[in-house]
Amino acid sequence: MAKTTPSSPSAAAAAELVVKSVNTIRFLAIDAVENVKSGHPGMPMGCAPMGHVLFDEFMKFNPKNPYWFNRDRFVLSAGHGAMLLYGLLHLAGYDSVKVEDLKGLRQWGSKTPAHPENFETPGVEVTTGPLGQGVGSAVGLALAEKHLGARYNKPDFEMVDHYTYMILGDGCQMEGISNEASSLAAHWGLGKLIALYDDNHITIDGDTDLAFTEDVGKRFEALGWHVLTVANGNDGYDEIREAIKVAKSVTDKPTLIKVATTIGFGSPNKANTYGVHGNALGPKEAEATRQNLGWPYETFHVPDDVKKHWSRHISEGAELESAWNAKFAEYEKKYPKEAAELKSIITGELPLGWEKALPTYTPESPGNPTRTLSHQNLNAVAAVLPGLIGGSADLTASNMAFLKSSGDFQKETPTGRNLKFGAREHGMGAICNGVALHSPGLVPFSATYFVFTDYMRAAIRIAALSKARVVYIMTHDSIGLGEDGPTHQPVEHLASFRAMPNILVLRPADGNETAGAYKVAVENAGRPSILSLSRQKLPQLPGTSVEGVGRGGYVISDNSKDGEKPEVILMGTGSELEIAARAGEELRKEGKKVRVVSLVSWELFGEQSKEYKEMVLPSEVTARVSVEAGSTFGWERFVGLKGRAVGIDRFGASASAERLYKEFGITVEAVVAAAKELC
Amino acid sequence: MAKTTPSSPSAAAAAELVVKSVNTIRFLAIDAVENVKSGHPGMPMGCAPMGHVLFDEFMKFNPKNPYWFNRDRFVLSAGHGAMLLYGLLHLAGYDSVKVEDLKGLRQWGSKTPAHPENFETPGVEVTTGPLGQGVGSAVGLALAEKHLGARYNKPDFEMVDHYTYMILGDGCQMEGISNEASSLAAHWGLGKLIALYDDNHITIDGDTDLAFTEDVGKRFEALGWHVLTVANGNDGYDEIREAIKVAKSVTDKPTLIKVATTIGFGSPNKANTYGVHGNALGPKEAEATRQNLGWPYETFHVPDDVKKHWSRHISEGAELESAWNAKFAEYEKKYPKEAAELKSIITGELPLGWEKALPTYTPESPGNPTRTLSHQNLNAVAAVLPGLIGGSADLTASNMAFLKSSGDFQKETPTGRNLKFGAREHGMGAICNGVALHSPGLVPFSATYFVFTDYMRAAIRIAALSKARVVYIMTHDSIGLGEDGPTHQPVEHLASFRAMPNILVLRPADGNETAGAYKVAVENAGRPSILSLSRQKLPQLPGTSVEGVGRGGYVISDNSKDGEKPEVILMGTGSELEIAARAGEELRKEGKKVRVVSLVSWELFGEQSKEYKEMVLPSEVTARVSVEAGSTFGWERFVGLKGRAVGIDRFGASASAERLYKEFGITVEAVVAAAKELC
Repeated sequence: MAKTTPSSPSAAAAAELVVKSVNTIRFLAIDAVENVKSGHPGMPMGCAPMGHVLFDEFMKFNPKNPYWFNRDRFVLSAGHGAMLLYGLLHLAGYDSVKVEDLKGLRQWGSKTPAHPENFETPGVEVTTGPLGQGVGSAVGLALAEKHLGARYNKPDFEMVDHYTYMILGDGCQMEGISNEASSLAAHWGLGKLIALYDDNHITIDGDTDLAFTEDVGKRFEALGWHVLTVANGNDGYDEIREAIKVAKSVTDKPTLIKVATTIGFGSPNKANTYGVHGNALGPKEAEATRQNLGWPYETFHVPDDVKKHWSRHISEGAELESAWNAKFAEYEKKYPKEAAELKSIITGELPLGWEKALPTYTPESPGNPTRTLSHQNLNAVAAVLPGLIGGSADLTASNMAFLKSSGDFQKETPTGRNLKFGAREHGMGAICNGVALHSPGLVPFSATYFVFTDYMRAAIRIAALSKARVVYIMTHDSIGLGEDGPTHQPVEHLASFRAMPNILVLRPADGNETAGAYKVAVENAGRPSILSLSRQKLPQLPGTSVEGVGRGGYVISDNSKDGEKPEVILMGTGSELEIAARAGEELRKEGKKVRVVSLVSWELFGEQSKEYKEMVLPSEVTARVSVEAGSTFGWERFVGLKGRAVGIDRFGASASAERLYKEFGITVEAVVAAAKELC
Repeated sequence: MAKTTPSSPSAAAAAELVVKSVNTIRFLAIDAVENVKSGHPGMPMGCAPMGHVLFDEFMKFNPKNPYWFNRDRFVLSAGHGAMLLYGLLHLAGYDSVKVEDLKGLRQWGSKTPAHPENFETPGVEVTTGPLGQGVGSAVGLALAEKHLGARYNKPDFEMVDHYTYMILGDGCQMEGISNEASSLAAHWGLGKLIALYDDNHITIDGDTDLAFTEDVGKRFEALGWHVLTVANGNDGYDEIREAIKVAKSVTDKPTLIKVATTIGFGSPNKANTYGVHGNALGPKEAEATRQNLGWPYETFHVPDDVKKHWSRHISEGAELESAWNAKFAEYEKKYPKEAAELKSIITGELPLGWEKALPTYTPESPGNPTRTLSHQNLNAVAAVLPGLIGGSADLTASNMAFLKSSGDFQKETPTGRNLKFGAREHGMGAICNGVALHSPGLVPFSATYFVFTDYMRAAIRIAALSKARVVYIMTHDSIGLGEDGPTHQPVEHLASFRAMPNILVLRPADGNETAGAYKVAVENAGRPSILSLSRQKLPQLPGTSVEGVGRGGYVISDNSKDGEKPEVILMGTGSELEIAARAGEELRKEGKKVRVVSLVSWELFGEQSKEYKEMVLPSEVTARVSVEAGSTFGWERFVGLKGRAVGIDRFGASASAERLYKEFGITVEAVVAAAKELC
């Protein structure tokens, strides 16, 4: 138990001020939760000491510019303890968290949502709350730092140089995603990642003994981490400081500091119980805690000396940034090429005319699987977008998601832009969220078989919610993958993501549409994109276009005369647009007037004007047939109650792709027959 | 390198026969993959020795009755190595895998799908392939054994007494789910779980050094496992045997045996490369392997002495089962009550009239959140269904998913029927799959917030695919959960599961519908059910019924006269059925003829006759409004192109439930206004 033992009167006063500051953080949390009678006071009360030491004594930031590039990053993976972070941002002088925001905790329209949200509160780096996501995001932030530092630092210019700190709890530790991400963090040697583990032995269900009896420290050692212990996280300030110092001194491994704390520290009757995890203390216990910790102040009060102590961060932060800016100006002179690239990563500005780099295709171009076309486009983008970085979860060659111009990002080769995630889809997803939110110009891509989005869905949802531009290269997107069978064949996945807010699902049919999909994915900086790609070879289709993809849905062919309406509309996406097109030809041979429509992105089509949508799908034409090798769920939106959706509403099977298409009736004949029933 | 060193001529002959048997397994895999030019030969070639030792020398099974209750369970978590399992089942005399099935590997209609599927191939316990799922399922199987043994064994009657073996690979080890499930296996002290880790250092992307450099053995020790190493898994038969023996002798911990193997062992040019993982060897290399291993036989050949050696399992298995049956007959006499219960768990037969145990409700019954009503129903079911067992992922009190009549299942209290999963949703899901597939009468339930189905979706999909009756108690099912904000508020989740094959989504509105949902979930033995339940209090509604739930959609009120059609149909589910009902009353006050329909389960409604569906939703009534606090995606199926869907097509927010319903327009007023636009 190494409490602070001051060596002089001024040291004693300083130590006292620390305690006061820590209690300020505790009572801001208590008061905010009490005020709205909703929230989680226990974690901030226990973690206030480490929070204080980190923010006040170690971290580098500029409160008046929360987006200053070279700031240290902080992630509160135990996101329910949001009031710890809000209290710290408030003390540090961030404009995003004023006292009225603290009073509006978890309420409509406030900047202090229940769990930290990067898009609501400047100063919050990533969105956390679902347990373990923050661990992955923090690994992503640290990876971005290591990678950018390796690419852009020069012996005399450390332009990229910051730490990534995180606080995580028992809940995060239990989640598999944190083991995945932590294994990679050690593998990659992310020495500037420092995790403080709030080891309080309490979960929602009660004592961790109920379900969590492993040796966490030993597990992290096995993963390759540097592990430290702070025996007294409640008031062992020197111990906390020393641990962080030692952590910083170890540069080849990430560090886990196990900090023993008491949840709800200070509450005489509720500390060390799960009752203090997710409920207000109640007025009586809040008062008892005030007595117990000797806190004579009214609610939401920040004592003047605490205020004064923290106020230095505003000037210090401004100085840090301006020194960095001055240094960058020199760097720009000496290394103009590197500086321009780094600047584009910092600002996120796309090079003018970048999209000209995308390959173009004609109906005469060779047929290819869209995963191969994706590979061509991905590499074209890489040539003009220095911030493109990513990889696959142990399926690199199958997903074709790698940059030919670059090597692997590894511990000793951190300039590489290809990431090897191993079979860790969920970790991959969360890591990419961290990369995307590190700098506006970083564009992470992540790849696996489309069906395995199920493993990383929680991280994809966080990308959508937190407006992170992640590009998901999801190949093997239907029964078209063939023999691998139903465990590997997606069926419901397109529908499941079309239902998710703020994410684009793009299912290109050929080269032009794949180029269009990449254009959309790169240009939509405020949302992630899923590219749903075929394993099997597809022809280049007449009528497809990059521009069409931008509108989400468009006519690729129509033999009705000007001013006439077609008798039937056939719709398809991806690998089945060819089937729709061929069915259209069949029907036209029989004299039918047929329109064929590509519905490559339902979200983009939904965002078009009413007039455009009516132009593509005229209401009066109710004879409509869709074809897609996936669940028909949702297609009623376009075919209506009178149309027909050709699709697969069962699990797949082991067989060749050809056989499966035939057995499941995803065929030209089936589309023609359905159309004839209707017109 | 402890190779078998035979001590006598007969021992030498026996050792030779083992090698011959192992090579038979290797060449069955090589030949089957070669025959269809598709599959994964490398893993079976490397794991044939441990597979042989396990099945031929240790495991207890009856090939002619793959469902004999007291058999040892085997799980091939590295499911791509399916040919290892098919080869073993073939040699052991299972009728499910004849030589023609081996020849039809991965082909339409055969019993040998790409990855092992319990519902296709008797002898396969659980469906694997998506990495790590098998680890969780194996933990579930071992948990079921420990639990049932504790409840039903008597000092003189070990009626439940088997091991659970599994083989897992590097891919499984990297997945977070396997860490979650393995942590629980040690916590629960599942001493009869023995995992053989195919430690071959090769993944699809190449050497494990690319992405996987942790110390797996040490990690498992940290989790609380007993860890052993077999240095020579390629032909160290005695070493393998000894390790399994030692593993069986340790009864308080699960054992991980790290078995060093060479992927593609025997192939002179492809062994120890990722090229042999997922591709046929090719005729030339197959022949070179025949030369190398001294295999003079034609394809698919099982030498007579190997055949003869394995044939004893048929008689031995029959004897094992009949001895157990005789013992059970004695047990039945001495312990008739326990025997009857255990029998019901073995057969899965529901007690006659079991559903009478479900509580009944009237409109006068007190209003309650459906999570509370779920708690009442769950406990009522527990009283009549001895196989009901389950729990929550660290949200027990919130989900209200616990049995009041029982304690916790823990290492030292294995009779408990309440499982504490900790914050490990994915592990929970896979473990429940194993429990469900252990015995037809085991009905596992698993609970979390609905939004966190994202964490366990891959396991839920395996439940649906493998026809496992798991009951998912998913509470906090909309913005109605209030202040916890968008990370905790499901939006797209109902739609995402409605699109998934072979799973029932049930969103009950009150007591009667909750009882109906439990009746459906229990009686649908061939598919899982998701119960989508509210955090917030709801009234008991007139017109709801258990029978109505069984039909998925039904009229709860209608003021149009007999023979007349209503002017408008209002539809709702769960917490919003009340809104639809109140909107109906408002409109009726204004003289409208309004029908209100509960669409509690789209899947069940979809399975009704055309006539019934037309009766509930007459085609000619196109004025239709739906209301549900979730994505409107998919509602076009019922409201058509002319109707209106009131819902939420964005992420939620932090605020009280009342405020959110108002801000997002999920209100009686909004439904009334939409209806008036239409009629």
